[in-house]
Amino acid sequence: MEFDSVVLAHGEGGLATKRLIEKIFSPMLANEFLDKNEDAAVFNVRSLKGRMAFTTDSFIVEPIFFPGGDIGKLAVSGTVNDLAAMGAQPGFFAASFIIEEGFPISDLSRVVKSFAENLKNAGAMMIAADTKVAPEGHGGEIFISVAAIGEIYRQQNISLDKIEVGDEVVISGDIARHFAAILAVREKIDTEPPLQSDCAPLWNIVKAAIDGGVEIHSMRDPTRGGLATTLVEISEKAKIGIEIDEEKIPIKPQVISLCDIYGFDPLYLANEGKMTFFVRRGDGEKLAGILKNFEVSRDAAVIGRVVDGDGVILNTRTGGRRKLIMLEGAQLPRIC
Amino acid sequence: MEFDSVVLAHGEGGLATKRLIEKIFSPMLANEFLDKNEDAAVFNVRSLKGRMAFTTDSFIVEPIFFPGGDIGKLAVSGTVNDLAAMGAQPGFFAASFIIEEGFPISDLSRVVKSFAENLKNAGAMMIAADTKVAPEGHGGEIFISVAAIGEIYRQQNISLDKIEVGDEVVISGDIARHFAAILAVREKIDTEPPLQSDCAPLWNIVKAAIDGGVEIHSMRDPTRGGLATTLVEISEKAKIGIEIDEEKIPIKPQVISLCDIYGFDPLYLANEGKMTFFVRRGDGEKLAGILKNFEVSRDAAVIGRVVDGDGVILNTRTGGRRKLIMLEGAQLPRIC
Repeated sequence: MEFDSVVLAHGEGGLATKRLIEKIFSPMLANEFLDKNEDAAVFNVRSLKGRMAFTTDSFIVEPIFFPGGDIGKLAVSGTVNDLAAMGAQPGFFAASFIIEEGFPISDLSRVVKSFAENLKNAGAMMIAADTKVAPEGHGGEIFISVAAIGEIYRQQNISLDKIEVGDEVVISGDIARHFAAILAVREKIDTEPPLQSDCAPLWNIVKAAIDGGVEIHSMRDPTRGGLATTLVEISEKAKIGIEIDEEKIPIKPQVISLCDIYGFDPLYLANEGKMTFFVRRGDGEKLAGILKNFEVSRDAAVIGRVVDGDGVILNTRTGGRRKLIMLEGAQLPRIC
Repeated sequence: MEFDSVVLAHGEGGLATKRLIEKIFSPMLANEFLDKNEDAAVFNVRSLKGRMAFTTDSFIVEPIFFPGGDIGKLAVSGTVNDLAAMGAQPGFFAASFIIEEGFPISDLSRVVKSFAENLKNAGAMMIAADTKVAPEGHGGEIFISVAAIGEIYRQQNISLDKIEVGDEVVISGDIARHFAAILAVREKIDTEPPLQSDCAPLWNIVKAAIDGGVEIHSMRDPTRGGLATTLVEISEKAKIGIEIDEEKIPIKPQVISLCDIYGFDPLYLANEGKMTFFVRRGDGEKLAGILKNFEVSRDAAVIGRVVDGDGVILNTRTGGRRKLIMLEGAQLPRIC
C-alpha cells in the first residue's frame, strides 16, 4: 500500500515502517552500517590514543523549507559545526526523525535528500537511525535529533581553558542572517536581494584554518542567543574579559533594516553557519585571510580581543562602551 | 524569575535556558564533560583496536509517567538495550530534550531525575545534551532523543551473520507487558495485580551471559512490532528459518486477558525490557539458568531454534503450525 502522507502505522516498527525506510531513507542514506540492520552500529576505533568529540542537537525549525536551507541541511550543519568547534572532523552520525502523522511523504523525501546530500558533502556517514511517528497536532511536522562522533583533527587541543589575554576574536562572516531569513519568510517580507539563511556546515573552513597553522584556542558556533550570548558564556566559563568592536562586525544591510523594523538587536540573533574563533595574538588576520577563500566565510573579520577582567564590552560605532549581557526572554520560537 | 511551566524563553539559548539547565538538569546530570560547556564533548578512546557500538532512539510515550516507569527510564532502557544487543557496555550518552511550552517544571524535574538515576544504574554518563522548546500544541509534552556509544565487551562478535542452523532462541522473560501496561493505563483498566511495564535496562543480564561463557550469536531488543516482528526481521536479514513453540513463550495471565478483550496478538506487542538471544546449540538452558538469577529476567525461557529454510513458524499450543508475518497497520500510537 502506498501513502502520500505519513500515517501512524509508519511508526509501529512493522511492515509500514520497513517500507517507509526502504522507500525514503535507504535510497539516500544506505551504507554498510545501516544495511546490517542491527540495534546499534559497530565501528572500529582507528588510532591508539585517539580523542573523539561527541555532540547532540535537535532541530524544530518552522518553516522546514526556508530561503538558504531546510531542516535537513540545518540538522547536518548544526551538528557538523558543534564538532568543528572542537576541532573534530565529522565522522559518524545518528539521526532520529520524529514525524507528525499527515506529514507529506514528498516533503519527507526532500528533507531526507537534503540531509543525505549535506552529510555526504561534510564527509560524514549516518550509521544509526530511528523514526517515530507522533499523532497529528503533536509532532510539529517534523523534528530531527542528531548525535555525532568526530575524530579530533591533527592533535588539536581546543578548549575554553586555552583562551588567554591577548587572544584575537574572529567571526567567520556576517551575523544574524539565519534568524533574519526565518523572520522574513514568516512575516512575508520581501527584501532585495532576498535574504538567505547562512545555514552551512563549516568543517572545511575549520580544517583549512588548522592546516594553515593558525593557533586556535577555542571556537564556538553562535546559534541561539547569537554572538552576544555566545561571547558572554565564553567570558563566564573561561573567566576572561572580551572586547568587541561594533564597526568590525560584518552584517548585511537588509539584516540591519529588518532588525530596525522589529526592534531586534542583531548581536542576539541566531546564526547557523558561523564560527567564532579565539586565536593566538597575531593570528587573527592570518585566519581571516584563510577564511576569505571560502564562499561561506567571505566576510570573515577580526572583531575583538581577550582582555583582563571579566564580561563582554562592545565598543560602539559612536565611541561608547556597552556591556553585553545574556539574552533574556523569548524572541521567535522554532528558529533552529 | 521563577517559572512553574516551561516557557518559550527556555528554548532561546539565553538566560532562561541557562537557568533551566542549572536548576533542573545540572543537579542530576552534571559531570566533568558537561561542565566544560563546549559545543561537543571530547573523550579518549581507551584501547588500541577497540570496537564501539553507536545507536540512537527517540521516545514519545504517552502518558509520560506509567506503571513501571516513565519516559526518562524508558529513554535510558531503550538505548542501553540497543547497545547491549551488540554486546556493548553502555558508555557515553547524548540526550536531546524537546519540551512543549507549558510543560510543568515539576514533571520535567521528575523526568530528568529518573533519566539520571537510570543512567547511573546502567553505569553510563551523559556527556552531550541539548534542550529545545516547541510552542504549545506542537511538542506533545516531551520527547527525548538519545544517542549512545558503548564499548564492545570482551571481544564479543555478535551479529546477525553469526546465526546458524541449530542455534537456540531464548527470551529473557514474559512478553507484551510494556504495551499492555500502557494500554491499561490509557483505557483506565484495573488489573489485579496491577500491570507494570517491563521497561528496564538489560546490560547487567547480557554481561552475566557473556561472563558465564554463553556463546551468543545475535541479540535483539523486541520493542515496536513485538517478538514476532523482531523474529521475522531476523529471519529475513540472516536468511534462516526460525521455529518457536507457543507454549514456551512466557506471558502474564493479565496480559493475555487484556489482549483477548482488545483483540491484540501479544506476539506483536512492544516490550521495553526484554532481550531475544540466539545462542549456540546446547547453550540455551545454560543461558536461561543465568538469566533467572536476575529479577528482570526471572521468567527467561528457551522458546525455539534456528532451522533450515526461511520464515518464522509458530508451533501453536493446539499442535498447529502458524507462519508469522511482520506487523501490518497501526496499533497504538506513542507507546515508546
